[in-house]
Amino acid sequence: MSKFWSDAIRDLTPYVPGEQPKVSNIIKLNTNENPFGPSPKVTHAIHSFESNKLRKYPDPDSTSLKNTLADYYNVSSNQVFVGNGSDEVLAHAFMAFFRQKEPLLMPTITYSFYDVYCNLYNINYEHIPLGDDFSIDLTKYQRPNGGIIFANPNAPTGKALTLDAIEGLLNTNTESVVIVDEAYVDFGAQSAVSLINKYPNILVIQTFSKSRSLAGMRVGFALGNAELIEGLERVKNSFNSYPLDMLAQDTAIAAIQDEQYFQETTQQIISTREWTTVQLESIGFNVVPSKTNFVFATHRYLPGAELMGFLRTHNILVRHFSRPGIENHLRITIGTPDEMSAFIDCLKKHPDISTLD
Amino acid sequence: MSKFWSDAIRDLTPYVPGEQPKVSNIIKLNTNENPFGPSPKVTHAIHSFESNKLRKYPDPDSTSLKNTLADYYNVSSNQVFVGNGSDEVLAHAFMAFFRQKEPLLMPTITYSFYDVYCNLYNINYEHIPLGDDFSIDLTKYQRPNGGIIFANPNAPTGKALTLDAIEGLLNTNTESVVIVDEAYVDFGAQSAVSLINKYPNILVIQTFSKSRSLAGMRVGFALGNAELIEGLERVKNSFNSYPLDMLAQDTAIAAIQDEQYFQETTQQIISTREWTTVQLESIGFNVVPSKTNFVFATHRYLPGAELMGFLRTHNILVRHFSRPGIENHLRITIGTPDEMSAFIDCLKKHPDISTLD
Repeated sequence: MSKFWSDAIRDLTPYVPGEQPKVSNIIKLNTNENPFGPSPKVTHAIHSFESNKLRKYPDPDSTSLKNTLADYYNVSSNQVFVGNGSDEVLAHAFMAFFRQKEPLLMPTITYSFYDVYCNLYNINYEHIPLGDDFSIDLTKYQRPNGGIIFANPNAPTGKALTLDAIEGLLNTNTESVVIVDEAYVDFGAQSAVSLINKYPNILVIQTFSKSRSLAGMRVGFALGNAELIEGLERVKNSFNSYPLDMLAQDTAIAAIQDEQYFQETTQQIISTREWTTVQLESIGFNVVPSKTNFVFATHRYLPGAELMGFLRTHNILVRHFSRPGIENHLRITIGTPDEMSAFIDCLKKHPDISTLD
Repeated sequence: MSKFWSDAIRDLTPYVPGEQPKVSNIIKLNTNENPFGPSPKVTHAIHSFESNKLRKYPDPDSTSLKNTLADYYNVSSNQVFVGNGSDEVLAHAFMAFFRQKEPLLMPTITYSFYDVYCNLYNINYEHIPLGDDFSIDLTKYQRPNGGIIFANPNAPTGKALTLDAIEGLLNTNTESVVIVDEAYVDFGAQSAVSLINKYPNILVIQTFSKSRSLAGMRVGFALGNAELIEGLERVKNSFNSYPLDMLAQDTAIAAIQDEQYFQETTQQIISTREWTTVQLESIGFNVVPSKTNFVFATHRYLPGAELMGFLRTHNILVRHFSRPGIENHLRITIGTPDEMSAFIDCLKKHPDISTLD
């Protein structure tokens, strides 16, 4: 605490990301990273980069990247916004759209950065409880609000909504912005991108950190009506003209240009997820049906914190959230087939699991 | 304008950076970029980068970069903050320190992004006029305030303050944060970094975009008392956990590690600046004494806008600001010796300059 801080800074509770251990020989299933490296086209973009160009500022509008995304998603480039990871895109969106009189609505259990943005920008918000099976019921969001945000598939549950459910909400919720955070959508859920030309108030946010294997490069984007995108540009250009460096722009373009690699790696992760789910169920876990690159699972009687500690002593990291209602769940990122075999084998060595049945 | 925007967004006037032309064969003296590429160590860092690492998130704390900067400036690593360009560092600093009851004080003529941040965060501010010679008189800032910010050397004037003048201010201004924006300090001015252990309320902000030739990579930093740095970290961690990608961190470290290249290129720019100043004075310009990588100059009788247009028709870009008081000045970035010769030769072809004397 310092007398020099603005008053509001004293009350901030910053987001705490999953641990990034500085040692190797760890199986890291705690931050939903892709187990495969980025496309060889990304490697080529980096290794053939003409470093002399770095003396100049990058294109502040990331025009080539926006055009590449517009082509890929079949939208106009003025319907595309890009930022330094989807976290920065989300931050600007909260400022641009959610500082309203009525409260922002979001699920009780979802990406925990949403609450942090609300505190940062002094946004009034309300949590809407999930169903007992962790499902989001969008009919509960049909009441006066200053905005709605949810992740689809949701995190850390991995559960997806249908496009029909989202369209049902948009049909009645016409006066505030609805943000669908699709960080994990490429692993099997339905994207709402197809709705942006039909509804002026939906903003879809995606990231290169998961399915595109570029967490280390920090690129995220939003797709929506041109007026929403203009609102984001106004905030961005009042904050930082050049959020994406030259290599971030180039590597993101290269990643989009390798559709085959994207399909292959994504399908591999989906297959491994299904295998992992079956294995976990066979040793006493309940697993929430996942459309993401992680599974959210709870053991029949072993506490989540204890399981996390047990795995950690065997150099396997998973994510555990201590908040009530999910304190016995683990969020387990889907790694390579070998990593997931090692993970399952490790669990089978737990004295209370090995004596099951 | 959109009904979906938060009210405050409607009144934003975003910052407009200098033009980044998409064609080549232009002599670009309009955005204060370094005419030399980055150090060969930067090139090596990029071309030897193991791209597979990009699947993981970068170190959210940029620990290695902070340690490298701490060693270089002989401070502790908890006195170092890093961000996505000094623009992002400034944005977080405005939020962390300047949202106060009393107004923020800044020079009438300085980096024009400061006003933009104030509008973004709803900060009350007052402009303090410069002297007729564009000097900043810090005794005028000794009155109740919620913070003080100025660039040293100032932009777009290029004029520097002495360390004694800054220390004089700090001796009396003890209750609010004083930010010294040293984007251009490496081109001949005195840095205030030596004051951060003596005064708890000074924050020095620098960038890799100018003297380190890394504008394309987006890295800036702040040095100050650990409590001020903690305030910045709180804002950063409530906004975006990972603002610096892996390559931004690696290239910035490589740039700091090549002191010889830094000294040689910086000295070359200083020599070319002095040569350019003499040449401009010989053809009827008044040039403000500069400690930066640009000169701020006005012709004895030719209007600034006309000169900018004339240069542009000859594929030379310089920056012109239309604001009253400096509307007849040009801000001219110092390029290579060849570029500056071409620039001077071009001016000598102007009919009203060639007939001088």
